[in-house]
Amino acid sequence: MTDPLPGAFAERMRARLGERFITTKAVCDQHAGAGMHLPALPPQGVAMAANIDDIVAVVQACRDFGVPIIPYGAGTSLECHVGAARGGVSLDLTGMQRVLRVSPEDQDCTVEAGVTRVALNEHLRHTGLFFPVDPGADATLGGMASTRASGTTTLRYGGMRENVLGLTVVTPDGAIVRTARRARKSAAGYDLTHIFVGAEGTLGVIADVTLKLHGTPEAISAAVCPFPSAAAATSTVIEAIQSGLPLARAEYLDAAAVAAVNATFKTDHALADTVFFEFHGSPNEVAECSERCRAIAQENGGGDFKWAVAEEERSALWRARHHAGLAIAASRPGTLPWSTDVCVPISRLAECIVATKHDLKAAPFPAAVLGHIGDGNFHVVLMVDTASRAEIEAAERFNDALVARAIDMDGTCTGEHGIGLGKREALVAELGAGVGLMRSIKRALDPKGLMNPDKIFALEG
Amino acid sequence: MTDPLPGAFAERMRARLGERFITTKAVCDQHAGAGMHLPALPPQGVAMAANIDDIVAVVQACRDFGVPIIPYGAGTSLECHVGAARGGVSLDLTGMQRVLRVSPEDQDCTVEAGVTRVALNEHLRHTGLFFPVDPGADATLGGMASTRASGTTTLRYGGMRENVLGLTVVTPDGAIVRTARRARKSAAGYDLTHIFVGAEGTLGVIADVTLKLHGTPEAISAAVCPFPSAAAATSTVIEAIQSGLPLARAEYLDAAAVAAVNATFKTDHALADTVFFEFHGSPNEVAECSERCRAIAQENGGGDFKWAVAEEERSALWRARHHAGLAIAASRPGTLPWSTDVCVPISRLAECIVATKHDLKAAPFPAAVLGHIGDGNFHVVLMVDTASRAEIEAAERFNDALVARAIDMDGTCTGEHGIGLGKREALVAELGAGVGLMRSIKRALDPKGLMNPDKIFALEG
Repeated sequence: MTDPLPGAFAERMRARLGERFITTKAVCDQHAGAGMHLPALPPQGVAMAANIDDIVAVVQACRDFGVPIIPYGAGTSLECHVGAARGGVSLDLTGMQRVLRVSPEDQDCTVEAGVTRVALNEHLRHTGLFFPVDPGADATLGGMASTRASGTTTLRYGGMRENVLGLTVVTPDGAIVRTARRARKSAAGYDLTHIFVGAEGTLGVIADVTLKLHGTPEAISAAVCPFPSAAAATSTVIEAIQSGLPLARAEYLDAAAVAAVNATFKTDHALADTVFFEFHGSPNEVAECSERCRAIAQENGGGDFKWAVAEEERSALWRARHHAGLAIAASRPGTLPWSTDVCVPISRLAECIVATKHDLKAAPFPAAVLGHIGDGNFHVVLMVDTASRAEIEAAERFNDALVARAIDMDGTCTGEHGIGLGKREALVAELGAGVGLMRSIKRALDPKGLMNPDKIFALEG
Repeated sequence: MTDPLPGAFAERMRARLGERFITTKAVCDQHAGAGMHLPALPPQGVAMAANIDDIVAVVQACRDFGVPIIPYGAGTSLECHVGAARGGVSLDLTGMQRVLRVSPEDQDCTVEAGVTRVALNEHLRHTGLFFPVDPGADATLGGMASTRASGTTTLRYGGMRENVLGLTVVTPDGAIVRTARRARKSAAGYDLTHIFVGAEGTLGVIADVTLKLHGTPEAISAAVCPFPSAAAATSTVIEAIQSGLPLARAEYLDAAAVAAVNATFKTDHALADTVFFEFHGSPNEVAECSERCRAIAQENGGGDFKWAVAEEERSALWRARHHAGLAIAASRPGTLPWSTDVCVPISRLAECIVATKHDLKAAPFPAAVLGHIGDGNFHVVLMVDTASRAEIEAAERFNDALVARAIDMDGTCTGEHGIGLGKREALVAELGAGVGLMRSIKRALDPKGLMNPDKIFALEG
């Protein structure tokens, strides 16, 4: 796997890309997709695409020489999605940063795969529209589509599954395919868009993404509320949703996560099971929704709402939430965080979080629990000393138990992080014969097995 | 294609199903999927499944004998989806009518494929929840999933694409596969659910469907508003959506559709381009939303809102809308309606409707235009005298032009009716190389080509 690429292949790449084809160790190592619990798997070369024709050229060259190809965005995925498991070329799309089209009347846009969510929202700033999906990291929209990302606002606006209207894809044989036209809905044949959303680059390369946009809410307010227990926090959110309250965000942080946020961001939130809420709508709607939510919280023993209404206050709140993982990491210097996630039916969420926290009490490392409670999705961030074999093994056992419990509750082994290399066995436990269907589709669309090989499942399994 | 089924096959079916395997002409003709512009294609036998084990048995027998198999629900699809294009067995799922599970806390349920949307909502009546997708006909939920159905409330609640959480599918080799577990979201591998939603039974048989449910709105009100033009009606809805108004329904009817509704339902709506609105929410939200919508309508020259607030009034209104097609049919006795649909980006909708109505002026048959204007989706119901070759040819020319215009506007050849046999050429015009990907998936999952053959695309193409 560390053999150099064939000389004729490298020549062809250089003829096309010039200095945008790079084989230096430093750059290859930057594209190795390491996670704490997963190995670094550097490619043998990195191709920097500037446009869709570059993608086609790289894909065709890889096809002709049998070289694996790994699409690469911001590299913020967590399960070694972008590692070069069988060597090959990392196809870096971060140079494709054009917003190709915004249609305010249709509330949609088309962007190249390398545009990040923050860059898109900056671009949209004066249109009255925004793109809501926020996985935390400033990921590229191509990568977010490829991993079926979601985030804090998915409760209200949906994730990438709901917000990708269509894609332009380069298939493994170098053909350019648009998966859908721009109608809001269609009953025209197989849903090609959703075949590629979440395929983690194993079926083709996403070149551009057509996205639903949403109207910027007229009014927004946010509030922080401490609860006596994880169950009380969860019940509040379930009851609010069942009452039809259109919560925009409902983010749970356990006391450990709150402590880490307080330390890093100099805040003074009570060290308790806590929910960060956000409400979007007209001023009346926001007032009504937040008041009804507050009443439900109080019935569940929640404390006072600490409001954040001004934009700077809200931004600070969500910056703290989005960087909670880093804050938690900082709480045990010298370790790397291992962030895992599961998602269960919301009726099982409280039980799942309580059992998870029980397991963590026995763990030899500190950890924090936080997540998108309204979707039944939560993360556990483990602060494992990678020099300690005992800690790593305990972390693996913890993660296995977490996943098994989620599946046993009819949930999923990953709500938003994806499978990559890290959760392939969990996927089989979750979907059984369904993984066989996935293999059939993979073999049909990528018969040479060159597109991000070994991710999601092993072809031989 | 009209040869009898192999004797040994029929024996095996009778051994399994007894009298639920039927080969009489009358029953086969009932399963022939005729549409006005499409031929009746009766199967050679009908198998009435009572449970998933029956489905497996029928699929395995068909596989062993090379007999085509056509999944059949309510038979309300419009493009000959259920015709037996290559003979074989119609697998009738209407006997599978159990609601397997309702979870109010999770706002979801699982139903067998033969449960209809009306039966489901009747079952949910006392739960405070409802299932919103309403294609008009009382279709089965398996059929609605298979055709990626939508309807009047899709604007607010989404269609089947958004509301199917998972499926149990019997694959062409007789394996039972669950496409997803019951978490609200998942990043676990390929999106198997969406591969089967909209596949029109060409990849396997849907045995049960897990659906999102929604809280019954606290308050509902509806209103009818006449407009001076189709463009004024369209602009009103676009502006309301852009203002962030969460319209539950916004249904356009042209004057011909209104006239037919008036005649059939003894109503006295003004003969004009008209929108039927509905608003859902808390009493305050409904009041605010409807008032803001009324103001936008008036700015666009709309007339007074005629309100329907009481449940009986609203039911009558939507019954009239859902049966508008039949009302239109009744306007020219002795003919059958040909109902077609397209969907375009909403920015192009007014232009598309105006051009469509221009074409209709020159047509030798009466027709009406109506549709889900907030989604950019509309129907044209053509009242063609099937005894007149000239009328049929004019209708075909009209439909071809309608589809070409929608695709030219970056829309789709069908927003909700599907491809079946009727729009296969349109699909190629719309998605080009994408149809090749669909064929690859079909060959991978159904190598013998027995599942509802010839639908969506010809395999040989």
